[in-house]
Amino acid sequence: MQLLKDRIKKDGKVSGDNIVNVSSFLNHQLDIELFNEIGREFRRRFADIPVTKILTIESSGIAIACITAQYFGVPVIFAKKHEAKNLERAVYESLVFSYTKNKPYRIRVAQEFMQPEDHVLIIDDFLACGQAVAGLIDLVEQAGAKVAGVGIVIEKAFQKGRSAIESNAYRIESLAVIESLENGRIVFR
Amino acid sequence: MQLLKDRIKKDGKVSGDNIVNVSSFLNHQLDIELFNEIGREFRRRFADIPVTKILTIESSGIAIACITAQYFGVPVIFAKKHEAKNLERAVYESLVFSYTKNKPYRIRVAQEFMQPEDHVLIIDDFLACGQAVAGLIDLVEQAGAKVAGVGIVIEKAFQKGRSAIESNAYRIESLAVIESLENGRIVFR
Repeated sequence: MQLLKDRIKKDGKVSGDNIVNVSSFLNHQLDIELFNEIGREFRRRFADIPVTKILTIESSGIAIACITAQYFGVPVIFAKKHEAKNLERAVYESLVFSYTKNKPYRIRVAQEFMQPEDHVLIIDDFLACGQAVAGLIDLVEQAGAKVAGVGIVIEKAFQKGRSAIESNAYRIESLAVIESLENGRIVFR
Repeated sequence: MQLLKDRIKKDGKVSGDNIVNVSSFLNHQLDIELFNEIGREFRRRFADIPVTKILTIESSGIAIACITAQYFGVPVIFAKKHEAKNLERAVYESLVFSYTKNKPYRIRVAQEFMQPEDHVLIIDDFLACGQAVAGLIDLVEQAGAKVAGVGIVIEKAFQKGRSAIESNAYRIESLAVIESLENGRIVFR
C-alpha cells in the first residue's frame, strides 16, 4: 500500500536495527484519515472471504480494527491483556511471550463473543515475532471458529512472525512489509 | 441519547450497586454501528466549539474516540498507562488513582502531539470517580492547550466524577447518565 509506505518513510523514526517508531500517526497519535484508507485496503484484500467478526488485541490494534470494521459491517472484539474486574465470566485464554518485556502475559476473550459459526478476521498494527497473532489464532481455534485471515499494517519481515503463523496455513495480508531497518534506513520488500 | 439508553437497558448487566457491565457492545465486543451514532451525537453536542484533537486513554476509550474523530475530521491521541519502550521522548505525565485497583498509575502523552494552539476534546467511555478524566485534563493543561470539552458515553451520577471535573468549569456532555443501579435496576436521569 503505497500511501502507507510513503508515510512510514516520511514520519517513521528508526532506532537501532529493528525498531521503527510510528507513534506520530499509527499507535500514539492516530491519523484517522489514513486509518480509513487502511480499512478500505483490508476490505479490498479480503473481499472474497466471509467475515463475521474482527478480533484484535489491546491497545494499539483497537483503533485500526474499529475503523476497518466499518468496511466489513461487523463488530470488533479485542483481547484483553490484564485481569479486568468486569470480565469474570467464562473466557478463552492464551499465553503470549513478549520479547519487548521478556516475559509472558495472558490474553483473554469472553467465550460468549466467539461462536463456532464465526469467521474471524484478525487485525493488528505490527507483525514482528508473531507471538500476539499466534495467541489470537489460538483463541479463535479454542472457540471452534474459523480464522478468516490475518491483516497486518506493518510487517517486519526480518523477524520471524510470518513463518510462525504460515505454518498454520492462514492467509496473511500485510500492507507494508519492511525488509530491513539497518543503518537507520527503511527498506520495503 | 435514547438509542444508547435502550441498549444499556437491554444488554447491560448490573452487578452489585455500582457496576454495569456493557462488555457485549461497548468495551470488549464493540458495536461499531452504535459507535457511529455515538460519534454523530458528540459532534452534534460539540458543534459550536473548535476542536483540533481528540484525547482519550487506553484501552476502551480508543475505539469511541477513533469513530468519533471521523465526525470532527481531527486526529486522536491516546494517553498510555504503562511504560512503553518506544515512548522515550519528552512526555506530559499525570498520576491517576484507580479505585478499581486501589493504587495510582501514570498516564503519559508525548509532548510533540499537543501544542498550545490545540483545542482538545476529551472522550472516554465511563465517568465514575472522574480520576482518569481529571488526569487527561491535567495533561492538556500542562501542554498549555485548551480543553474544548469532555464527552462521556456513560456517566455514573451516583459517583463523584462530575463534581471533580466541573470545579474546573469545563463543559461535560454525557450521552447516558445513570442515577442509580440499586437492586439490579438501571435508573437513568
